Amino acid sequence: MLTFYYVPNTCALASHIALEEAGADYTGIRMSFADEDQKNPDYLAINPKARVPALVTERGVLTETPAILLYICQLHPAAGMASLDDPFELARVQAFNSYLCSTVHVAHAHRMRGHRWASDPAAIADMQANVPRAVGECFRLIENDMFAGPWVMGEACTISDFYLFTLTQWLAGDGVDIATLPKIRDHHERLARRPSVVAALAEELG
Amino acid sequence: MLTFYYVPNTCALASHIALEEAGADYTGIRMSFADEDQKNPDYLAINPKARVPALVTERGVLTETPAILLYICQLHPAAGMASLDDPFELARVQAFNSYLCSTVHVAHAHRMRGHRWASDPAAIADMQANVPRAVGECFRLIENDMFAGPWVMGEACTISDFYLFTLTQWLAGDGVDIATLPKIRDHHERLARRPSVVAALAEELG
Repeated sequence: MLTFYYVPNTCALASHIALEEAGADYTGIRMSFADEDQKNPDYLAINPKARVPALVTERGVLTETPAILLYICQLHPAAGMASLDDPFELARVQAFNSYLCSTVHVAHAHRMRGHRWASDPAAIADMQANVPRAVGECFRLIENDMFAGPWVMGEACTISDFYLFTLTQWLAGDGVDIATLPKIRDHHERLARRPSVVAALAEELG
Repeated sequence: MLTFYYVPNTCALASHIALEEAGADYTGIRMSFADEDQKNPDYLAINPKARVPALVTERGVLTETPAILLYICQLHPAAGMASLDDPFELARVQAFNSYLCSTVHVAHAHRMRGHRWASDPAAIADMQANVPRAVGECFRLIENDMFAGPWVMGEACTISDFYLFTLTQWLAGDGVDIATLPKIRDHHERLARRPSVVAALAEELG
């Protein structure tokens, strides 16, 4: 049994979709940033980083989306969510997911988490004004150079698709017009109809 | 045969150390940000992200430090640089490496790459002024909550150690006093004497 801590509309959605796709035995625990649940001492004992997602397993706690996604794949190899027996293909998945966490998510985070890196309100406002440019550059690179099609990695739907779908959800709020990204728009529309995505969103927003 | 593209004093050092530790058959290609080698069309054909590291394999190009590190482990399992047969332990390694790439490296990057997220020179200067705080918070979390000891993951030296060593190299420039981080200082001193680290630094700086 796994326990999955998440906040709706965060990167935790990617892992939530993977849990659904795998048919994993898990309990979802919804938290709220508005209520500052992530700073509750009980949660800090689970994840001292005060962030989501966190996945509590029988062996201990796992954090960070790329790690949780890989772990779910390895627990449920039959779900076929990554090429676990091909180191090169697995590294392609990990490279894409690393780009999402270290560059794309970070570009987005400057809209609402600028205080992590600046203290002057004018600087934080300038960061916010640059989010459409910074996020847009990332997504154009994905659209033009990284997206193999029909799925991110090519013929197989993988954890990278669930992670990309999750960050694509933020584009409108980040001031990037998805109509300028036709492959990513089509990808997002296809995934929005996938049963695992429907189920994860229903649990998060229900 | 692998070809490894790097710039000295960047996060590429982590993968460089892993290649040495594994005794991998590779050729290192030193590049220069000062000469803008990363924007050369020949390099952009290898890595359109215009960043390092990049590892050219017989099957194609891999980028992003966490992915390259895992790939080197999988090519050289006898080197014992990660618990490849234990999904939970492997996920712990990937979680730590994801934290380094998505949070620690990003906090550091605001010192010299502020233009990625801001345009006003005053905002970029404010980001730079906040780097000692932001990087310091990350390293205190590692020191107090994440470092199992004697190595990052516990009893075994893994790719997470090489990656942490690499980012620890930047602490002085980031205005963080390593003397306030005794576990990390001891870890850095031990690794600085390890043959693979000595060899990688000698090639990068020689």
